[in-house]
Amino acid sequence: MPEISMKGIQMPDSPIRKLTPFANAAKERGTHVIHLNIGQPDIATPVASMDAVRNTDRQVLEYSPSEGFASYRDGLARYYRGVGVDVEADQILVTTGGSEALVFAFMSCLNPGDEVIIPEPFYANYNGFAAWAGIQIVPVTAHLSDGFALPPMAQFEAAITERTKGILICNPGNPTGTKYEDSSLVALAELVKAHDLFLFSDEVYREFSYDGSMAKSILTVPGMDDHALVIDSVSKRYSMCGARIGALVTRNEAVRKAAMKFAMARLSPPTLAQIAAEAALDTPSAYFENVRKEYKSRRDALVEGLQGISGVECPTPGGAFYAVAQLPIEDSDHFCQWMLESFSHDGHTVMMAPNTGFYATSGLGKKEVRMAYVLDVPEIEKAVACVKAALAVYPFSIASKQVSE
Amino acid sequence: MPEISMKGIQMPDSPIRKLTPFANAAKERGTHVIHLNIGQPDIATPVASMDAVRNTDRQVLEYSPSEGFASYRDGLARYYRGVGVDVEADQILVTTGGSEALVFAFMSCLNPGDEVIIPEPFYANYNGFAAWAGIQIVPVTAHLSDGFALPPMAQFEAAITERTKGILICNPGNPTGTKYEDSSLVALAELVKAHDLFLFSDEVYREFSYDGSMAKSILTVPGMDDHALVIDSVSKRYSMCGARIGALVTRNEAVRKAAMKFAMARLSPPTLAQIAAEAALDTPSAYFENVRKEYKSRRDALVEGLQGISGVECPTPGGAFYAVAQLPIEDSDHFCQWMLESFSHDGHTVMMAPNTGFYATSGLGKKEVRMAYVLDVPEIEKAVACVKAALAVYPFSIASKQVSE
Repeated sequence: MPEISMKGIQMPDSPIRKLTPFANAAKERGTHVIHLNIGQPDIATPVASMDAVRNTDRQVLEYSPSEGFASYRDGLARYYRGVGVDVEADQILVTTGGSEALVFAFMSCLNPGDEVIIPEPFYANYNGFAAWAGIQIVPVTAHLSDGFALPPMAQFEAAITERTKGILICNPGNPTGTKYEDSSLVALAELVKAHDLFLFSDEVYREFSYDGSMAKSILTVPGMDDHALVIDSVSKRYSMCGARIGALVTRNEAVRKAAMKFAMARLSPPTLAQIAAEAALDTPSAYFENVRKEYKSRRDALVEGLQGISGVECPTPGGAFYAVAQLPIEDSDHFCQWMLESFSHDGHTVMMAPNTGFYATSGLGKKEVRMAYVLDVPEIEKAVACVKAALAVYPFSIASKQVSE
Repeated sequence: MPEISMKGIQMPDSPIRKLTPFANAAKERGTHVIHLNIGQPDIATPVASMDAVRNTDRQVLEYSPSEGFASYRDGLARYYRGVGVDVEADQILVTTGGSEALVFAFMSCLNPGDEVIIPEPFYANYNGFAAWAGIQIVPVTAHLSDGFALPPMAQFEAAITERTKGILICNPGNPTGTKYEDSSLVALAELVKAHDLFLFSDEVYREFSYDGSMAKSILTVPGMDDHALVIDSVSKRYSMCGARIGALVTRNEAVRKAAMKFAMARLSPPTLAQIAAEAALDTPSAYFENVRKEYKSRRDALVEGLQGISGVECPTPGGAFYAVAQLPIEDSDHFCQWMLESFSHDGHTVMMAPNTGFYATSGLGKKEVRMAYVLDVPEIEKAVACVKAALAVYPFSIASKQVSE
């Protein structure tokens, strides 16, 4: 039998989905599994989006242009200007999800063996896209103790080598929920310019901010035209994860031309989903206000609930819809699996993502879990009660004083 | 400014789309451009497919499972068994178009620097996916004189090196339209087994065959379970290119597990399009009979028309909806551009794909063009008249006797 690829062997399983067989087994036993493992919101997709699809009169489901429909790109440019990002339609490449935008960004900017610095913990699937492109991820570690703030520039400086070609951030962050300070982004931009690097900014959670202001886009920082690439997606914004529509936005023309070649090779982003995404652009601001209000309630229920459990630490995230909690345990992979395999409380249990899979540095995150607060407050409250009950009986719980060492 | 990637620089432009600016300029001058450059059929998508989308009652456009919806995979397994390919649902990974299926196949089976042998001329976007995966394409040349039949096994043997890890075929072929003989496929399978290689078989044109029998799937050849991967897509089958739904089908479990990791990284194939594709599975056989009849008329109009032009050679393709013609010219890139820039006949011109972009060997295909017969017979007849008139006045036409040298 011919051997499969090294990438195929080495690529890690998704920390978000790898415990699914245990969740399925729990469900077969009749246990209700509360899914806080995955960022699949229960919020309704804007009705106008689904209606646009329902009302399509197309007879032939044709390719769109490789760069996306012109009308959609024009609409996107208006959307960006509406959130303070001054870009033209031709600086936007419509992609098949944010995932493809990142793949195109890596493929267009980086050679195999190049290094990209990423604050950890980071979205685990970045590992997959790095393997895809044959590049090396170099982590700089952020810490739960300061709410996973952007690490000091000295830490980035220390990580830069002659192979460093870029820095990747996610703002607001997955899995941390951290919304970076504007001043941190400006400092990072200076560093990027000083070392002539690319800055890949994953901004798919832009609207999910709970302090009254949106996260700052890297494209609003002056002097970044040659350096900045924004990875974007409609998945979370309009609760349409299944659309698979994203965008790569950059003012760097050479990058755009290269990305366009990859876009042409894969022909086009999905046509029906672009119809839905274009209609979503007219979503009234009241939709986002309601969504933010709802998520804020959920966040507060989760975080305050967790903070009330002895031995648990959970900084209050400023954005996205994730929280990382430190639990009085030694092995979050074991704990998350045990929750599904061996525990239930009032007939339910909680599926969480072990945070180990979000670190590149081996050994980190072993006390941490990521929870996506994508369910309503009563479910969140059930989940918190469940975690509390679980920690009380988990055979490998450790005393809270040890945790804070 | 940071430098873009080598891949981004070296990747060739698509021969199918690179002349688009010249076509647009022709349209602006008022010339009607007959598009034979791209395989975008005008055939209606099955009504049941579009209706399934129009009737969706989903409120939240959620992710599907990374491997695709279970109901769709079950339906696909039934479809394959119906065309004589015995596979189970769990041997099918639903992908975002055939493009992604090929990317996953390359990523899962091949390491950077590995070689894959492909009969040329081949679908130009294979170059893009090879660049994507960092692998080398090694061509073996097929010839217009024998209808681009699969080259003799000795030619493949001669191309095998210690870096060779697989062979890729497209059957029926793009750009050639060639449907391989069953005996050729069996011989190729023996070679693949003898050298312990992977065989990637792009079978997206399976239904487009004009001699009464479908092209043979490589998965029907005995002993290929460890070696064979089928790349498939609904794009052409149901005239739904814009859906972006394909499949990677293999009985090799190690390959499937690796491919599943890449699938998880990109989360899921598009949800709406899977709804359309699943509904398409119930398409009655009368649909395909009508489609085949229509394409056969188009093929005959094109090929017989071209064969009637002095100095033109065009073998009759047995499948797909492409034909490669040899014209009495020296530079097909120049001719195709000239047709758009400097020529019109009765107010129209023809956009074709220069066949140079479908060869890996530099210098081949300079007398050849690819035409997709995806328009109705009156349009095809106009296109043939147009090509004939163009060759009569093209300043760089060569005498027909020179062509056959």
